[in-house]
Amino acid sequence: MNEFELIEHCFAPLAGPEGLRLKDDAALYTPRENYDLVITTDTFVEGVHFPNGMYGADVAERLLRTNLSDIAAKGGTPLGYLLSVAMHADKMEKWLPAFAKGLETTQAEFGCTLWGGDTTATTTQAVYSITLIGEVPRDEMVQRQGAAIGHDIWVTGVLGDAMLGCRLATNQLISPVPNGQDLFSFESAYWRPEPAFEYRKILQRFATAAADVSDGILADVTHISKLADGCATINFDALPFSLGAEAWADGQDDAITSRMELASFGDDYGVVFTSEQMDRQAIFDMAREARLKATLVGSVLPGSGAVSLDVEGQAMAWAQTGYRHV
Amino acid sequence: MNEFELIEHCFAPLAGPEGLRLKDDAALYTPRENYDLVITTDTFVEGVHFPNGMYGADVAERLLRTNLSDIAAKGGTPLGYLLSVAMHADKMEKWLPAFAKGLETTQAEFGCTLWGGDTTATTTQAVYSITLIGEVPRDEMVQRQGAAIGHDIWVTGVLGDAMLGCRLATNQLISPVPNGQDLFSFESAYWRPEPAFEYRKILQRFATAAADVSDGILADVTHISKLADGCATINFDALPFSLGAEAWADGQDDAITSRMELASFGDDYGVVFTSEQMDRQAIFDMAREARLKATLVGSVLPGSGAVSLDVEGQAMAWAQTGYRHV
Repeated sequence: MNEFELIEHCFAPLAGPEGLRLKDDAALYTPRENYDLVITTDTFVEGVHFPNGMYGADVAERLLRTNLSDIAAKGGTPLGYLLSVAMHADKMEKWLPAFAKGLETTQAEFGCTLWGGDTTATTTQAVYSITLIGEVPRDEMVQRQGAAIGHDIWVTGVLGDAMLGCRLATNQLISPVPNGQDLFSFESAYWRPEPAFEYRKILQRFATAAADVSDGILADVTHISKLADGCATINFDALPFSLGAEAWADGQDDAITSRMELASFGDDYGVVFTSEQMDRQAIFDMAREARLKATLVGSVLPGSGAVSLDVEGQAMAWAQTGYRHV
Repeated sequence: MNEFELIEHCFAPLAGPEGLRLKDDAALYTPRENYDLVITTDTFVEGVHFPNGMYGADVAERLLRTNLSDIAAKGGTPLGYLLSVAMHADKMEKWLPAFAKGLETTQAEFGCTLWGGDTTATTTQAVYSITLIGEVPRDEMVQRQGAAIGHDIWVTGVLGDAMLGCRLATNQLISPVPNGQDLFSFESAYWRPEPAFEYRKILQRFATAAADVSDGILADVTHISKLADGCATINFDALPFSLGAEAWADGQDDAITSRMELASFGDDYGVVFTSEQMDRQAIFDMAREARLKATLVGSVLPGSGAVSLDVEGQAMAWAQTGYRHV
């Protein structure tokens, strides 16, 4: 199959009506009244964002899900995406069908379609890029900016599985293997991160600021608190590491350093968000009712600096290169 | 400068309000009532879409202008774009400021802004991708589908300069150099193609189908006529090659083959469009009044096959690999 046939065979079946059967140079979308559009771009480079030599469904799912995660963190609903693929000509025929399969599964699960794109044969490492378009009710996008001093800091879901999954994906050992742990759940957390759409109502109603946990919760909360001219103070013991990640950390020489590593790694793709203190109980109630895990992990306090960590009663300053006592 | 500083320094000044100062993971756009959105993605790979070793303003201008050309061909007006950059870490600090300068010049000229993106350090060839969002009055996008048997085929502007410019850009000789020809105009046609926004009114009012001339007019008209279940019949002598390209072709061993090469190369980025015959005079009049060059080059006739060429009174079939007598 040549490039046109591959597009026709693999990608055209994924197109929504906006994609005009991928027969046009542009997609056509009629926006709904009283909605804003939320638009995000994520690029995956082979060997940087996924292991060398991986090209199939896993890569596609992870790429689309990381984009979906951005829309979820903004309180949005996904609509459609444009896909750029630059990959080795020799690999296209073998891998594009699998890649498309991964997109198909994911777009069906989250309700969006392919609207267009561009496919190019290269001679070196693969580069994929998705621009995903979503909608939110007018003026209700939850921005990264919007937190203020005194606001609570929350995180959804659990942390840590993705880092261990990444180690497995890159053929590194996890030692010790936590007792009774299903290693597949680590791998799954890495390859198929869960966009936090179930938290949409909580975010739209209560969040003053939000971002997905892509760079590690400590880095992501820094971005939010900097825009609030404040300092994020995190109760380290409250961070909701998964049971498997906890068990792994407890088996390392220094359990705190290992937890710090988990909190700095990223790729968890939950949402970190802030809210006013007076909404604290309402958030707990709403989460409990919906059977969602939302954990209060700290607050935005006056001060510069990135993140202040309260670890076993001791204040620590965190920097991306590690942490130190203050 | 690290990656964050480069983005802050180079790209943040290009951001429109929708880009939220590039401080968020997503852009926020409030669509205008009674408008549709037209969305297109183009990807440039080093060594494929621009010569190896070129990374600066020229590449950025060419990339953004090819995207703009798609929006222009659909009768649209550009709004904003998301940019994906994957380039060698060592080259970023030297070249991203120049790359951003090229974007700045182009977006100022055509009235759009940067809404977001993603920047990644790679170790191999550069890959850039732009997703450009434009608007058209509701239901007025000119699609590639829409032509019918009997419709006229038109092309805007002149053809051929871009191919000669590409030769210069890749250090190939142009021989003979047309008498009195300013070679810079060839280079300029290649690096700074002119999106056909001036033809917007003609397209919105009369075009039944349109596409930009990106793959060569013969290929681009094929895409249109195939969707019309017809065959594009082109009066080869009517194709509006530039004076410089004409002079170059006349200096070659076989002037027809050379013109065929010019018509097959692409990158001209005018618009090829179809219209009903009864609008022919009105299009001539409207173009003359606006001092725009629109040339009637053929019509959509019954038949399969790609393009039929009328060359010096002889019918020829065209294939992407060349042409042959029938």
